[in-house]
Amino acid sequence: MKKEIINIIKIGGKTIDNEEALAQFIKSFSRISGKKILVHGGGILANQIGEKMGIKPNFHEGRRITDSETLDLITMVYGGLVNKKIVAKLQAQNVHAIGLSGADGNLIKAQKRSVKEVDYGFAGDIEKVDTALLQNLISQNLTPVICPITHDQKGQLLNTNGDTIAKEIACALQVHFEVNLWLCFDKKGVLLNVNDEESIIQQLNPKTYAELLDKSLIHDGMKPKLENAFQALKSGVSKIRIGSADDIDITINEENTGTFICA
Amino acid sequence: MKKEIINIIKIGGKTIDNEEALAQFIKSFSRISGKKILVHGGGILANQIGEKMGIKPNFHEGRRITDSETLDLITMVYGGLVNKKIVAKLQAQNVHAIGLSGADGNLIKAQKRSVKEVDYGFAGDIEKVDTALLQNLISQNLTPVICPITHDQKGQLLNTNGDTIAKEIACALQVHFEVNLWLCFDKKGVLLNVNDEESIIQQLNPKTYAELLDKSLIHDGMKPKLENAFQALKSGVSKIRIGSADDIDITINEENTGTFICA
Repeated sequence: MKKEIINIIKIGGKTIDNEEALAQFIKSFSRISGKKILVHGGGILANQIGEKMGIKPNFHEGRRITDSETLDLITMVYGGLVNKKIVAKLQAQNVHAIGLSGADGNLIKAQKRSVKEVDYGFAGDIEKVDTALLQNLISQNLTPVICPITHDQKGQLLNTNGDTIAKEIACALQVHFEVNLWLCFDKKGVLLNVNDEESIIQQLNPKTYAELLDKSLIHDGMKPKLENAFQALKSGVSKIRIGSADDIDITINEENTGTFICA
Repeated sequence: MKKEIINIIKIGGKTIDNEEALAQFIKSFSRISGKKILVHGGGILANQIGEKMGIKPNFHEGRRITDSETLDLITMVYGGLVNKKIVAKLQAQNVHAIGLSGADGNLIKAQKRSVKEVDYGFAGDIEKVDTALLQNLISQNLTPVICPITHDQKGQLLNTNGDTIAKEIACALQVHFEVNLWLCFDKKGVLLNVNDEESIIQQLNPKTYAELLDKSLIHDGMKPKLENAFQALKSGVSKIRIGSADDIDITINEENTGTFICA
């Protein structure tokens, strides 16, 4: 039997930071038919609010170091402000959205990243996604809107990368659905030349990706996103694309936008 | 057929502001058997964080005036920080908690309070509680943890009093359940003399309440809570008590603690 399609869309960056861009995305997302899940990051909003509160952002190679007060900040901004605003705006467009963190309904169990050379603080590495809960919500026509927060089931919230959450949910749900995973960011796709917005790589497979890596043609900032994409591919996710969130309802059905990740 | 019991417990004040008190409450709440719902306010935490961000609290007769930046603050602190922390801590005690605002799953539709003598800003008056969603979640053994935020279904989040949310949920669910509503606060019950913590009124009915009101023996700050309680009574909620959140698992079964609201 052919499995039902579910679209999992991850947004971040300008789509969240810019009110107008978010409003446009909400409208576009609401026009996607069928089952869908939205995963969001938090953009620079957490930094802006943190600055007002005297909390300095701390990054190591593009990854946030989450001390206790930064975790509180992220929980407030991503789990509260951003998540609830998106949910309310989607409900206004008749999308039956429900906001969730990984702690809610024990949706995503993670463990605190072990300290090696770098102590990332309260960063969580995902152990398990509860697909039964997701399936139940989806079967009630609800659209989960998931913020980048998980928990360790021992009472500790953990900051977890949004792309990784989207990927893990995609991998977990591909047993039950034909999953399309769209990792959106501020570019139209993976660029061959970071200074040329139009130099979009239309397709990447493990071999061509390895070749580009060898030639140092993959920007460091892109590597985690691409690794998530290739892990999803390996797990059986049907279709994976990296690209822009603009007009997502239209581009999601086009085969010539963004960067396709293929076997 | 006898209806199943559900306990709806509202907490606020010190229970939320004080980490130790919250930890104790979580343990106690987790020991309550059967179906249950937790509704929380936000205590002074929003004011403390608002102060760091340069947002001054603004009250009129004990009710918060919610301007746009205060609404964002409340959404962050109540919808994010407080809600997710409680959910994670409950999950650690094997309570299958799921955090919700009124926007999530369109749980609580409200309308912005109309401006009369006072403009309360983004304050929401409840129109409808979606009991179908609540019943579905409860039937999956989930324990809803509800923050004091609603929405107008047109994309606007609204700040709504936690006692009122607990009351409206109790009224909506009493059709399907035998509902016990426990409105917790920092006193052991309604006091006859605000300066005497032990002067607890054991029972209040509409008649005795009216008499005390006539004699100006009801503290202004207690009136909204008592009005919520009497509205719940009128709607058919089985048991309503006002009292302390301490040892809630024990006191919930005692008939001699707190103030009972009776017909």
